[in-house]
Amino acid sequence: MKAEILTALREAEGYVSGQQLCQRFGVSRTAVWKAINQLKKEGYAIEAVQNRGYRITDTPDILSEDELRSIRRTAWVGEKIYYYEATDSTNIRANRLAEEGAPHGTLVVADAQDAGRGRRGRGWDSSSGTSVYMTLLLKPDIDAANASMLTLVAAMAVAEGIRRVSGLNAQIKWPNDIVINGKKVCGILTEMSAQMDYVNHIVIGIGINVHNESFPEDIARTATSLLMESGGEHFHRAQLIEAVWEAFEGYYERYLATQDLRDLRNAYDAGLVNLGERVRVLDPKEPYEGVAQGITDRGELIVDKDGTRTLVSSGEVSVRGIYGYV
Amino acid sequence: MKAEILTALREAEGYVSGQQLCQRFGVSRTAVWKAINQLKKEGYAIEAVQNRGYRITDTPDILSEDELRSIRRTAWVGEKIYYYEATDSTNIRANRLAEEGAPHGTLVVADAQDAGRGRRGRGWDSSSGTSVYMTLLLKPDIDAANASMLTLVAAMAVAEGIRRVSGLNAQIKWPNDIVINGKKVCGILTEMSAQMDYVNHIVIGIGINVHNESFPEDIARTATSLLMESGGEHFHRAQLIEAVWEAFEGYYERYLATQDLRDLRNAYDAGLVNLGERVRVLDPKEPYEGVAQGITDRGELIVDKDGTRTLVSSGEVSVRGIYGYV
Repeated sequence: MKAEILTALREAEGYVSGQQLCQRFGVSRTAVWKAINQLKKEGYAIEAVQNRGYRITDTPDILSEDELRSIRRTAWVGEKIYYYEATDSTNIRANRLAEEGAPHGTLVVADAQDAGRGRRGRGWDSSSGTSVYMTLLLKPDIDAANASMLTLVAAMAVAEGIRRVSGLNAQIKWPNDIVINGKKVCGILTEMSAQMDYVNHIVIGIGINVHNESFPEDIARTATSLLMESGGEHFHRAQLIEAVWEAFEGYYERYLATQDLRDLRNAYDAGLVNLGERVRVLDPKEPYEGVAQGITDRGELIVDKDGTRTLVSSGEVSVRGIYGYV
Repeated sequence: MKAEILTALREAEGYVSGQQLCQRFGVSRTAVWKAINQLKKEGYAIEAVQNRGYRITDTPDILSEDELRSIRRTAWVGEKIYYYEATDSTNIRANRLAEEGAPHGTLVVADAQDAGRGRRGRGWDSSSGTSVYMTLLLKPDIDAANASMLTLVAAMAVAEGIRRVSGLNAQIKWPNDIVINGKKVCGILTEMSAQMDYVNHIVIGIGINVHNESFPEDIARTATSLLMESGGEHFHRAQLIEAVWEAFEGYYERYLATQDLRDLRNAYDAGLVNLGERVRVLDPKEPYEGVAQGITDRGELIVDKDGTRTLVSSGEVSVRGIYGYV
């Protein structure tokens, strides 16, 4: 009921009387009072005025299941939310939940991970209080061959979510890194469990640096956070999470209609940090340079190499901007 | 040490003295005696003759980690074995073990499953004492796009293992069912966990009907067991398991060299039950008939449709023999 009370307080213009809350949720005054007290303990600033009722005056950056549920506006993402103060990794957790029958749209969020994963088995630094770690579970009826494009869909959603909440110019580095001013602010790890061509489930793991004030030396030159890029602003993580998945639902629908990116290419390219710029394609066989020209319907990067159109499709291949960091 | 003593008893021509066993394993006579007694309790027939030693006279169909380890001859499959009297599903178990860091080649075997899985989320009847349920964990350095061919490699290994242990003419129904006299004796469920094009791990789950005396009505017409096809013989499941993985290791090496089936096509086609026969391809768009002509380098089924060569590649498409059951 705490989440519902939070929602009611937020939706109200002014005060909400205890009486109203009792009637709306069919509980006693004492129950409402207890829930309000609990919310205060969790950090919400709630004012109680005799004969007027309750009013929420400040929402600090609280990450909890109640908080996430109370601000949820998505249609199907997060209908089921699992929140952990700490977990091994939200992707591992989501994979387990999938095996145990969790439904399409289940969202796993954690404040800290102790086995955060990056691509190809690398680690992902995941301390508490600073970042968003979350994983969406999908059980779509798509061909396994089309699944990898979902990671580009997720990248579009994260960039848009960050722009909406922070106003910062979050761009996409192909295929699925999010950068601000040339530095990486988010990593996405999409994993699939499949039987031959049949998809069991897909998990899209997203880590966003929010309140980090600095980074370890080895990544300091290439990593950044929303706080650092905004000159010290503390953005509300639950709102950021909500904004990302709201954007995702729209993009996902357009992906699903064709199972490719034909309806999303233009929007993707508009956010592409390297569009029209010279890039270096670190092809393991022979690196080459060219001009990035956007993506194909299947999410490959089109690179013009001295007038020849080449397609970069493999996650094996790293693409670097020649000027700047990315 | 039990597994090692079992191996020693099996390798010996006649009796093995307690003294020899003590020296070989660096343990006391009492320890040997205890291990022998334990083995007897588990069902092994071991004769003990004063002044001569121990001799194994009969090995019933015992499935246990010791039994599997004692007859293991594979190079890398089953270096780590997890045996369960009952588990949810050996594929689920292997997926978990993979997440927890279990190495390439880990083998999971169970006597019974209470959540056995067939393709596309269907169940797989998995009662105890009658069948082989096992899953091999692979962590190969291959392209995700090439992974689905591994299920054909596994099919070849199962057919060969069954032929070797039982002498029955096990054949392959494309892509990966094993049939004897037109009835299904084994199902294979290959699942992959991947990050875009990078393979985290693959599990190959294999269920073989061994001692089943009958099947439920709904599958009785299409299912069979080694016992039913041999007229009542009880084959030794651990030996069957060993034979399958010995065959697998050879085929796998040839697959890995090219990451496709070019070196295995002929051997695969030789075991293909429908080779040269008319089949019905249940293409969801438009079913058609033609003559099965074997597989391509990538494991697609070649079907000659009135002189036109068509390739059947999707697991969506079921191929049925027109005469007989499969």
